[in-house]
Amino acid sequence: AVGVVFIGSIIYSMFTSPLQLTEAPSIADRDSISKRESGVTEKSPMRLRMEALIKEKQSEIVAALQELDPANKFRTDTWSRPAGGGGTSCVQQDGNVFEKAGVNTSIVYGTLPRPAIEKMRVNHKAIDPDVDSLEFFAAGLSLVLHPQNPNAPTVHLNYRYFETMDNDGKCNAWWFGGGTDLTPTYLYDEDAIHFHKSIKDACDKHDRGYYPRFKQWCDKYFYIPHRQESRGIGGIFFDDLDGQEKDQEQLFSFVKDCLSSFLPGYLPIVTRRKDMPFGEREKQWQQLRRGRYVEFNLVNDRGTSFGLNTPSARVESILMSLPLTARWMYMHEAEKGSREERILGVLKQPVEWV
Amino acid sequence: AVGVVFIGSIIYSMFTSPLQLTEAPSIADRDSISKRESGVTEKSPMRLRMEALIKEKQSEIVAALQELDPANKFRTDTWSRPAGGGGTSCVQQDGNVFEKAGVNTSIVYGTLPRPAIEKMRVNHKAIDPDVDSLEFFAAGLSLVLHPQNPNAPTVHLNYRYFETMDNDGKCNAWWFGGGTDLTPTYLYDEDAIHFHKSIKDACDKHDRGYYPRFKQWCDKYFYIPHRQESRGIGGIFFDDLDGQEKDQEQLFSFVKDCLSSFLPGYLPIVTRRKDMPFGEREKQWQQLRRGRYVEFNLVNDRGTSFGLNTPSARVESILMSLPLTARWMYMHEAEKGSREERILGVLKQPVEWV
Repeated sequence: AVGVVFIGSIIYSMFTSPLQLTEAPSIADRDSISKRESGVTEKSPMRLRMEALIKEKQSEIVAALQELDPANKFRTDTWSRPAGGGGTSCVQQDGNVFEKAGVNTSIVYGTLPRPAIEKMRVNHKAIDPDVDSLEFFAAGLSLVLHPQNPNAPTVHLNYRYFETMDNDGKCNAWWFGGGTDLTPTYLYDEDAIHFHKSIKDACDKHDRGYYPRFKQWCDKYFYIPHRQESRGIGGIFFDDLDGQEKDQEQLFSFVKDCLSSFLPGYLPIVTRRKDMPFGEREKQWQQLRRGRYVEFNLVNDRGTSFGLNTPSARVESILMSLPLTARWMYMHEAEKGSREERILGVLKQPVEWV
Repeated sequence: AVGVVFIGSIIYSMFTSPLQLTEAPSIADRDSISKRESGVTEKSPMRLRMEALIKEKQSEIVAALQELDPANKFRTDTWSRPAGGGGTSCVQQDGNVFEKAGVNTSIVYGTLPRPAIEKMRVNHKAIDPDVDSLEFFAAGLSLVLHPQNPNAPTVHLNYRYFETMDNDGKCNAWWFGGGTDLTPTYLYDEDAIHFHKSIKDACDKHDRGYYPRFKQWCDKYFYIPHRQESRGIGGIFFDDLDGQEKDQEQLFSFVKDCLSSFLPGYLPIVTRRKDMPFGEREKQWQQLRRGRYVEFNLVNDRGTSFGLNTPSARVESILMSLPLTARWMYMHEAEKGSREERILGVLKQPVEWV
C-alpha cells in the first residue's frame, strides 16, 4: 500500500487515466544503502535530502500539535512499499483541540510508462523523449487539521519533490510543488492576515514575485465551481518549479522555509481560538462548511481523485483529509448581516490580506 | 436552473466533457399548448405521458411519506426552465422519521450538439447520423430517503425517459432507464428479502429475465472501487431500454409498475424500524455508513458528476441526495462477530435475496 495524497497533485496533470506504478528496486536499494552507510548530508542527492527534510518536519509538527493536547496521543502508522519507499501517517481523532488531525509523509520509487513521460515533457524539457520507461522518485509531506472549535480554522499543507532518473539513479528532470491554505468557519481578519503574512515573509526571502503569484494560483486551485466559491481564504499553491525557475538549491531552501513557517503561521491562531465559547449555531455552521470541504476534496481535488484511482493506494491515508463530521442542509441560507454571510462573501471574492 | 440528477445518468455516458444544454422553445411550447387544450391521454406522445406519470407518482410518494411524520411538512420548490421544462423538489429535513428525504422531478427540453449525437448513436441506431444538432427531451423522478433510526435503511429510486425529436417534435429515438436500491446501516434479512421481492414481482410481470439482469447491473453500478465494497445491498438498475428490448408501450408499463412497487416495497420496512431503540454505537455506525454514501455519490456516481459539471444546474437538487450528517473515522474497524461486521461482509459480496 502507498500513501499517495501528495503524489496525486504531482502526477495527476500528466495522466488522464489511472496509472499502474511499477517498481524500481535497484535505485531504492542503493539509496537505502547509501543512507545507512553515509547518512544524508548537503552532498547527498536531492531526493534523499527532501526525504530527510519532510521526515524531520513531520516529527516537529506532530510534536508541537501533541503539546496542544497531551492527553490525546497521535496514532502513528508506518508502511513500506515492497519496491522501495513507504510512508508514515500520524493521526489524532476526536481530541480536545482537533476533531481530526493528520500529518502524512510518503516516499515512492516507481517507473513511468511512455504516455506519462510524453505528458511530463510538456513542462519539463529535461526529460529524455526517446525512452520507453523512466524511473521516478516522489516525496511529500501533507497535513490537514480540523479543529473542534468553530472559531478555529482548518488548515492544509502539502510540499513535495519529484524527479526522474536514469537507470543508475542519476537525476534527470526534477521539480518542487506544494502550498498551504486556511479554511475558517468564521472569519477573523487578524488570523487571515497573520497566516498570509507568515507565508509572504517566507516567500519574500526568496523572490518578491512568489507570494502574489502563488497566492493567485492557490485561489484558482481551491475554487469549487459547482458552488461558485472558494474552499477557504487561500494561502499559496505552486507546482512544477524546476531549473527554469531557480536552481535546485534555491528552490529546496524555499520549500524548507515554507515548511518552517507553518507552525509560527498556524499555532498562534489555533491557540487563541481553541477555547473560545460557542453554541449550537456555530457548531452547525462549522458542520455545513465541513460539508463543502468534503465536496472540494472528493469532487474537485485532483490529488484525491488521482489517489483514489491508483491501484493499491492507501485509501485511509488519502481520506485522512476528510473531517470527522460533516453536514448537508437543503437550501441553507446565511442570515443577512450575519457572521456566516460575511465569510461567504470572502469565499465568493478572494481578498488581498497582506 | 435545472434539476439534472436523473439526466446525469442518462446523458453522462455520452459526453466526456460538460455540455452546454441549449434551448428548444418551439417543441416545449407546442407540448405546453397541447397539454392545456387536450390534457394527457393514452394517445399523447410518450414524453407527455411520462411527465404526467412521474408527477403523479411524486405526489403519491410525498403524500405517503408525509403521513409517516405529519408534523414535519415537506418543503416544495418548483422551478421552470426558460426554454421549457422545469422541476419540483420536495424535501423534508431533520424530521421524526427522516433525517433527509428528497423527492424530485425534472423535465428538460434541449438541443444536443454533434459530438453528443455521435456518442448516442452507439446505443441507439434510430438517431439520424447526418444532423448537426438534435432536439431532445428528458423526464425523471428521483428520490433519496435517509431515515433517522440506524435500524431503518436508506433508499434511492430513479426512473427516467429520454427521447430525441425532429424539429416538428416527432419522436426519433427514445429509451427508459432507472432503478431502485437499498442501503441499510444494519442488516435485517427480512427487509432485504421484502425489498428485493417487491422489485422482482414488478419485473417478473414483464419479463422473467429482467430481475436477474437488472439486479446484477445494480450491483455493478453501485460498487465503490476505492473501498472495494458496494454502497448498499442493491435492487435493480437499467439504462438504454429501447425498441430493441420491447416496444415503447411495454417498457412504459414496466417503468410504471416499478414506480408503483416502491411504496409497498419500502414503507413496511421503514414503518417497522423507525421506532426501534438504538444507542450511541448504532448512531455512530450509521454516520460512518453515511460517509460512504457521500463518497459514492461525490466520487463514483456518474449522474452526480455530470450534474455538477452542467452549467446552470440546480446544485441544491443534485446534492439533495446527500445525507444531513456524515462521519469519517481514520482506520475504523468493525468488531469481530458484530452486526457491523456482518453488513460489511454483504457489501463485499452481493447476496441473491430472492
